[in-house]
Amino acid sequence: MGDIGVGIIGHGFMGHEHETMLSEMEGIRLVGITDRDPEQLKDVKDGVTAFASVDKLLGSREIDTVIIAANNNQHLALVKKAAAAGKNIICEKPAALSVTDFDEMIRAVKENNVLFTVHQQRRYDPDFRIMKKLYEEKALGNVYTIKNQLYGFNGNMHDWHVYFNEGGGMLYDWGVHLIDQLLWMVDARVTSVYATVKNVINFEVDDFFNIQLRFSNGVTAEIELGTYYLKDDPGWFERHWFMGGDQGSAYADGFRPEGKIVRTTELLHNVSGARTMTAAGPTRSFGNPREGLIVTEPLPEVSTCHRNYFENYIRAYHGQEDFLVKAPEVRRVLCLMEAVRESGKTGKAIAFE
Amino acid sequence: MGDIGVGIIGHGFMGHEHETMLSEMEGIRLVGITDRDPEQLKDVKDGVTAFASVDKLLGSREIDTVIIAANNNQHLALVKKAAAAGKNIICEKPAALSVTDFDEMIRAVKENNVLFTVHQQRRYDPDFRIMKKLYEEKALGNVYTIKNQLYGFNGNMHDWHVYFNEGGGMLYDWGVHLIDQLLWMVDARVTSVYATVKNVINFEVDDFFNIQLRFSNGVTAEIELGTYYLKDDPGWFERHWFMGGDQGSAYADGFRPEGKIVRTTELLHNVSGARTMTAAGPTRSFGNPREGLIVTEPLPEVSTCHRNYFENYIRAYHGQEDFLVKAPEVRRVLCLMEAVRESGKTGKAIAFE
Repeated sequence: MGDIGVGIIGHGFMGHEHETMLSEMEGIRLVGITDRDPEQLKDVKDGVTAFASVDKLLGSREIDTVIIAANNNQHLALVKKAAAAGKNIICEKPAALSVTDFDEMIRAVKENNVLFTVHQQRRYDPDFRIMKKLYEEKALGNVYTIKNQLYGFNGNMHDWHVYFNEGGGMLYDWGVHLIDQLLWMVDARVTSVYATVKNVINFEVDDFFNIQLRFSNGVTAEIELGTYYLKDDPGWFERHWFMGGDQGSAYADGFRPEGKIVRTTELLHNVSGARTMTAAGPTRSFGNPREGLIVTEPLPEVSTCHRNYFENYIRAYHGQEDFLVKAPEVRRVLCLMEAVRESGKTGKAIAFE
Repeated sequence: MGDIGVGIIGHGFMGHEHETMLSEMEGIRLVGITDRDPEQLKDVKDGVTAFASVDKLLGSREIDTVIIAANNNQHLALVKKAAAAGKNIICEKPAALSVTDFDEMIRAVKENNVLFTVHQQRRYDPDFRIMKKLYEEKALGNVYTIKNQLYGFNGNMHDWHVYFNEGGGMLYDWGVHLIDQLLWMVDARVTSVYATVKNVINFEVDDFFNIQLRFSNGVTAEIELGTYYLKDDPGWFERHWFMGGDQGSAYADGFRPEGKIVRTTELLHNVSGARTMTAAGPTRSFGNPREGLIVTEPLPEVSTCHRNYFENYIRAYHGQEDFLVKAPEVRRVLCLMEAVRESGKTGKAIAFE
């Protein structure tokens, strides 16, 4: 099997990341890169062609697959153009700004009979995979809640992500990953969606959201992201997972997560007995656990990384397996994001599936 | 002004707490205590009468005010009986199991022209008062989110709180406080309520809830409680407040809270610049704060405690001030709890006020 010739459209942040990863990846030959801003092409790596335009890149017969890594609002036109040129497509997330746009993309892809997938690579994040493993193995019994949270400490949002017209905002940027992870993990319909979506310090775009998902199998989940969740801890973010089941709780903090599983050795249904004083007064509905009641276990180990995304692309390209990220899954995430925005505007829960 | 003669109905957990506090409180004379279970009267303090029945206690001319501290499902009948006997009333929370029951109580109170208030004493919790002070002083600018959370580490729920018929469950037990605190803090209508309410390990009653409140002034709030949120930390609970505003964030953890206010010295709207690598891959929508950007301040000091509840009662009794906890406020909390249960059942957001 020959190497897949790849071209990258957009040499911004993600374009650079793809360049770094793909220029050293077996099974792929990075042919060239283009950007609408010539300044962005000055640091293209040696041995990789800097194409002066999208048309020139699409005209290269060495390029089989294009990665669309331009600003979000350019994805639709670029997918249509690349499909018309007969190129296979890996589109950055969010694939489209609306479900309508996405459907238009998929029509173009089908008409031209090209391959299409979306770079929702955070399906390979180790923190997520640990929680997914716990969920699949029913390690916590019946799960009642899953929390998927990300907070920035200093209010930063970068570059075009602060502009509405460019497809900015955190729901498009990170929301798509956090939602995708939960939809891919929980094998059930989402029956209702309720969300709060705010612009805290940004004028045009969302920088805080809280999403409540209710699944048909009884699981409920919360997704929360804030970029202005100030903290003086080292670093610049907090990444948290919590999963609560009737046989234990699990915590995972950070992208290379630390955490544990916590269980009770004996399930307590009804405990009468001594009162408990709190600093603020008495309560007795909770109480100190007896010695040995609470036990912990390490989190399971996983060994995934973002490189796996392209390894899957190569194998799927050669017909050895399916694409990990499939168009109907991408569409479902986009539908859910529209429900999130609608709920955020109206204050109503949206009946979903 | 003479001391107020007080009788306590119900010598369980809260009855004992009231006995301890009131037997040493200036302005109050604890006359007697009764309980339907004679066993519960064996440890009544010296100098305090153990009445063999509610009727006997209500028949005592020395008793002016009764504290109703029986199980939740007995409150209605006891309030009606006490009011008919011409006694002023302090009722434990939740005052009633439904708004209908509460309205019946209030009719009895009005017909008999007695004083009535409810022991929603967690309005005096220092952790809450700190957040209330920050909110009132606009110390964080425009508040976008408030979180009011309580978690138990070991799954305990005590005694009759596990029985539906006794008025058990955490929404009645703690929910009433957590909701009351937010409704009393935020001076705006609640426009919508969305909630998840679950029985995780209890057969009859709720032991987990997540409530999303949307206020007419733009503030949104989350209340969350779980009794099976297992942790191997010392102690048996986690109490958290988070308040996020466009001028800073504030954290308060614990009933005698530790926490701080965190601010940025400069508000960042659009930052281009170096990329940031995370362990799980690149992202650039957040980033490391520059040296000196993040600053902290201590939380304000407050000096309230539960004793203040009865000090207010004494002053209000003598016409020196209003009762802190007023019947319409109690009714509003109960209405909201009904909306919470409805939302929990239906998965719909409930339009509230």
